[in-house]
Amino acid sequence: MHALLRKLFPICRSITGPGVRETLSILREHVPLSIYEVPTGAQAFDWEVPKEWRVREAYIDAPDGSRVVDFKDNNLHVVGYSIPVDAVLSLADLQSNLHSLPELPEAIPYVTSYYRETWGFCLAHKKRMRLKEGRYRVVIDSELISGSLTYGELIIPGSTDSEIFISTYICHPSMANNELSGPVVTTMLAKWLLSSPRKFTYRIVFIPETIGALVYLSRNLPEMKRKTRAGLNVTCIGDDRVYSFVPSRKGGTLADRAALCVLREDHPDFIEYSYLDRGSDERQYCSPGIDLPVVSVMRSKYREYPEYHTSLDDCELVTPSGLFGGYSVLKRAIELLERNEFYETTCLGEPQLGKRGLYPTIGRRITLPAVRLLLDILAYADGSNDLIDLKSILGVSLDELYQGVETLSRAGLLRPQAGGSGESD
Amino acid sequence: MHALLRKLFPICRSITGPGVRETLSILREHVPLSIYEVPTGAQAFDWEVPKEWRVREAYIDAPDGSRVVDFKDNNLHVVGYSIPVDAVLSLADLQSNLHSLPELPEAIPYVTSYYRETWGFCLAHKKRMRLKEGRYRVVIDSELISGSLTYGELIIPGSTDSEIFISTYICHPSMANNELSGPVVTTMLAKWLLSSPRKFTYRIVFIPETIGALVYLSRNLPEMKRKTRAGLNVTCIGDDRVYSFVPSRKGGTLADRAALCVLREDHPDFIEYSYLDRGSDERQYCSPGIDLPVVSVMRSKYREYPEYHTSLDDCELVTPSGLFGGYSVLKRAIELLERNEFYETTCLGEPQLGKRGLYPTIGRRITLPAVRLLLDILAYADGSNDLIDLKSILGVSLDELYQGVETLSRAGLLRPQAGGSGESD
Amino acid sequence: MHALLRKLFPICRSITGPGVRETLSILREHVPLSIYEVPTGAQAFDWEVPKEWRVREAYIDAPDGSRVVDFKDNNLHVVGYSIPVDAVLSLADLQSNLHSLPELPEAIPYVTSYYRETWGFCLAHKKRMRLKEGRYRVVIDSELISGSLTYGELIIPGSTDSEIFISTYICHPSMANNELSGPVVTTMLAKWLLSSPRKFTYRIVFIPETIGALVYLSRNLPEMKRKTRAGLNVTCIGDDRVYSFVPSRKGGTLADRAALCVLREDHPDFIEYSYLDRGSDERQYCSPGIDLPVVSVMRSKYREYPEYHTSLDDCELVTPSGLFGGYSVLKRAIELLERNEFYETTCLGEPQLGKRGLYPTIGRRITLPAVRLLLDILAYADGSNDLIDLKSILGVSLDELYQGVETLSRAGLLRPQAGGSGESD
Repeated sequence: MHALLRKLFPICRSITGPGVRETLSILREHVPLSIYEVPTGAQAFDWEVPKEWRVREAYIDAPDGSRVVDFKDNNLHVVGYSIPVDAVLSLADLQSNLHSLPELPEAIPYVTSYYRETWGFCLAHKKRMRLKEGRYRVVIDSELISGSLTYGELIIPGSTDSEIFISTYICHPSMANNELSGPVVTTMLAKWLLSSPRKFTYRIVFIPETIGALVYLSRNLPEMKRKTRAGLNVTCIGDDRVYSFVPSRKGGTLADRAALCVLREDHPDFIEYSYLDRGSDERQYCSPGIDLPVVSVMRSKYREYPEYHTSLDDCELVTPSGLFGGYSVLKRAIELLERNEFYETTCLGEPQLGKRGLYPTIGRRITLPAVRLLLDILAYADGSNDLIDLKSILGVSLDELYQGVETLSRAGLLRPQAGGSGESD
Repeated sequence: MHALLRKLFPICRSITGPGVRETLSILREHVPLSIYEVPTGAQAFDWEVPKEWRVREAYIDAPDGSRVVDFKDNNLHVVGYSIPVDAVLSLADLQSNLHSLPELPEAIPYVTSYYRETWGFCLAHKKRMRLKEGRYRVVIDSELISGSLTYGELIIPGSTDSEIFISTYICHPSMANNELSGPVVTTMLAKWLLSSPRKFTYRIVFIPETIGALVYLSRNLPEMKRKTRAGLNVTCIGDDRVYSFVPSRKGGTLADRAALCVLREDHPDFIEYSYLDRGSDERQYCSPGIDLPVVSVMRSKYREYPEYHTSLDDCELVTPSGLFGGYSVLKRAIELLERNEFYETTCLGEPQLGKRGLYPTIGRRITLPAVRLLLDILAYADGSNDLIDLKSILGVSLDELYQGVETLSRAGLLRPQAGGSGESD
Repeated sequence: MHALLRKLFPICRSITGPGVRETLSILREHVPLSIYEVPTGAQAFDWEVPKEWRVREAYIDAPDGSRVVDFKDNNLHVVGYSIPVDAVLSLADLQSNLHSLPELPEAIPYVTSYYRETWGFCLAHKKRMRLKEGRYRVVIDSELISGSLTYGELIIPGSTDSEIFISTYICHPSMANNELSGPVVTTMLAKWLLSSPRKFTYRIVFIPETIGALVYLSRNLPEMKRKTRAGLNVTCIGDDRVYSFVPSRKGGTLADRAALCVLREDHPDFIEYSYLDRGSDERQYCSPGIDLPVVSVMRSKYREYPEYHTSLDDCELVTPSGLFGGYSVLKRAIELLERNEFYETTCLGEPQLGKRGLYPTIGRRITLPAVRLLLDILAYADGSNDLIDLKSILGVSLDELYQGVETLSRAGLLRPQAGGSGESD
């Protein structure tokens, strides 16, 4: 995963343009994405697809002729969606188009201006402070043209029409945790999901954040509302620090329950944020009237780590082990979704475990824990508790529960309730 | 307000009689009350209107001819509803008709006997202890006649039929916090409500406690049950001490929610009592089968302050600032009720705030709190949350919330849900 | 009760056989039990009635001819359901058929093998350690024959068809707390219930644990599901230690509420176990699809006291005061069930207590607690609160509540809601 991330890192992505297309074509080498183009001006609820942005080169030359800022060095140097400019300005006039972070003097900040036409450069505050009085030449060779917004979609059919929705975004230039960890981990999840049959159908999208989510929703909402059982927004999933969680708007959906169940077992020190702390595409997926059951399982959450939205969010911040940890926890959540059912017993009263070789033949003072677990699963398998409920009631690990359910199912004593969570209606 | 209180203070009120009428006629100088007379013997559920009581003079002359107790000095000296008496008694015989408070030796207690015919005098325990052996002349020149019970009503029409019910009582003789603060503050609220158009219709009553509430309910219950959205019982609202709250019987009504919302913001150190601590007309308004959404917002609650139901509850205990504080918190609660709606967004997904000038055009690392508030209001404006819910979810002040809602409503992004709380059905 | 317990103690009970019959015939001297016989091989849900077991004698003779273990000394010495054996074995070979408890070296453990044919002896670990090398003669003169399973039933008709279900078990050999305290206390409860008319019908069963419960349910389930309002599983109710409670599977049934209400008032230091700690016939009564509202009120709970399932659980561990305490708390719970109703007031507004002699005629500063209680009962008697709710809302004792409700009922101010909990549908 880290190699793929490093390959994607240098590309200059934005919400539209060649960077998005190049990114998707690299991902398509791994998974069979369908690519969609939506023309500039297309409506998406309250929004419309903006002009497509391309930038060829951009630089600032100092009064002494030296190139002090160059887009070639780092694509964060240009404010996203900058209009073309070719001018000579005093330092004072230039300042109003410069962006830097006094609190992080080494970092180039990430700045955009998608919906108002302007231009600007971003640079390390330390470098900005060293600029001398004089006249600077600024060049941005960009264009804003009628074009299209590009996104990728992968539908992996399952044995039911019910869907798990996975969304990640591909609109940030060279930054690693937010965002490249998202498409990279999602690609690996897709490869794993493609490797064997599943109960659920998987709808996986690689889209520009916000406008891409709105465009996708505006074209697919009725179907998604009918089919989606759980959704994951995959972002900030590659560093080596804490795990984080942002719930769906109202909480308590199958997505919330499965993700929290896994995080509590595997990473009990994870940070549980409120929906008030949201900041990615769940803003659209969970908005009133859309109300898809989408949660975010992350490592260091956007806005909460110092390198966020700067050039410091790079391929060293994101590590192979960080990506693998994030991938693993999402995989565990999906496995739980796949296995999850509302179980019910097949007979009245306790079954006679003994005649099935599941109970000790000699009655003594103590019941063995493994036998106890089988009896406890049966006691609560009344069709109103799914695996997530059972784990919480019985206080056992997911693996113990999977094994107990399998033993009882094989013995014919347990069955998924007809019309349970995995079935389409 | 304090001047009006001082004017009303000397009047000898009881549950019927000329004191009530005089009080109402003074209040009618400020607000256009309708006065109702309900004849003795009229039924009110399990009760009937008692005889009307009038007292002209009442005194006790000591053996040495000095007047030791005189109704002219303080109308608390006579037990309410005392029958006429003119007798000469030994001190021993007199004692059984005297009432005083050993624990408050300077205070004249307030005692009544509405529903059993008897007579009595109340006096400071200190004075009682100084009474010498000998024969005392006791005179109460009172009468209990077939007459009527008097109450005042003010209906202020709003733009909807839905009503806010405000009740206060006018049956206590010279005591200031319990009760004159109630009618005085209610009169000022009525003046304020009359000064500009409102969403709700206001039903404001000035009644004798208990029997007046029962009489009023027995004549208006079906209409009140249909129309009342929230109700306030106004009493003990004039001293300078703590704020207090008694909920409706089951709690959680719009009245409870609005009052608690304001108290928590403005006076977080208020005392939240249980309905088990009730003691005023919510006893009737919230009784089973009546079940109006009525709460009491008070300052020092009846029974909880030392001067309660004695001559120490006077015009010094109640202060201009105490009255104004009480008035202000009730006004804030009513303003909240007027503004309160279940809001819903007008578009799917987040709206594009930028094109309405509500979003910074440059995207940076941090979202401004004011912008964040707009997005948060929109995120929870799904028609299931009213302003009180929004405040609690978002953790902002009422004024910030009012402003955010106004900004979004002006931009056409938010609207009250049709059929919301303020509408009649 | 303790005398009856001592009389039943020596009998060798098992899940079938003469010991059960002898026990029931002794209990029938006290209460008019109906005795049922269910033949070997009869189906009961997933189970079938096993062969009937009888044992005449059983012993182990040491190499020196001395009898080291004899069933005549203690019927725990033989593993329950041992098949016949008459053999001479080396000590090494004998060991695999011996059971003892190293952690309790003086105790003979209780061991059974109902559903796999084997034989064995139980003895004190101390004695086992002293066995010398050599050849031992082992004799078990038992038989496993086609016979029947025996249980007792007592139906005490009440004024309604609604039933209280009481279950206790009679399948353990000489052990006192688990189990003889159960049938002994249940017999005394039955005598008390027979002594005067009741609202509820009582269904009381004396059955072998597990298989007896399953047999009884398989023959009576539809009727029991229709009629049962609350059920008590009576076991481990005779020692002098703590009180214990195991809830029904989901909790919150009338049985749970009544038992907890009494335990909290009378024995606030009781131990409240989870349904996960279950281990008696509630395993069947509360299983999915059966779902009867059955709880266990106990003293030292099975599995939780050191003497459990050993010869140390004897007539000294169970005491007269222990049995009486257990009996009393169950009686209190049944009294509460009998008195429990959803009460409602008979008039709108507060009634005029004064004209019924229930209110002081003189109004003063303080309302008497007894009057306050009447008003509080009336305030919450809206048909949605039963006695158990009222106790919890008002924080009074059951006896105070019973008295208040009786006073108000006599005055015609309170009535049980039609169709309340005691009525059959």
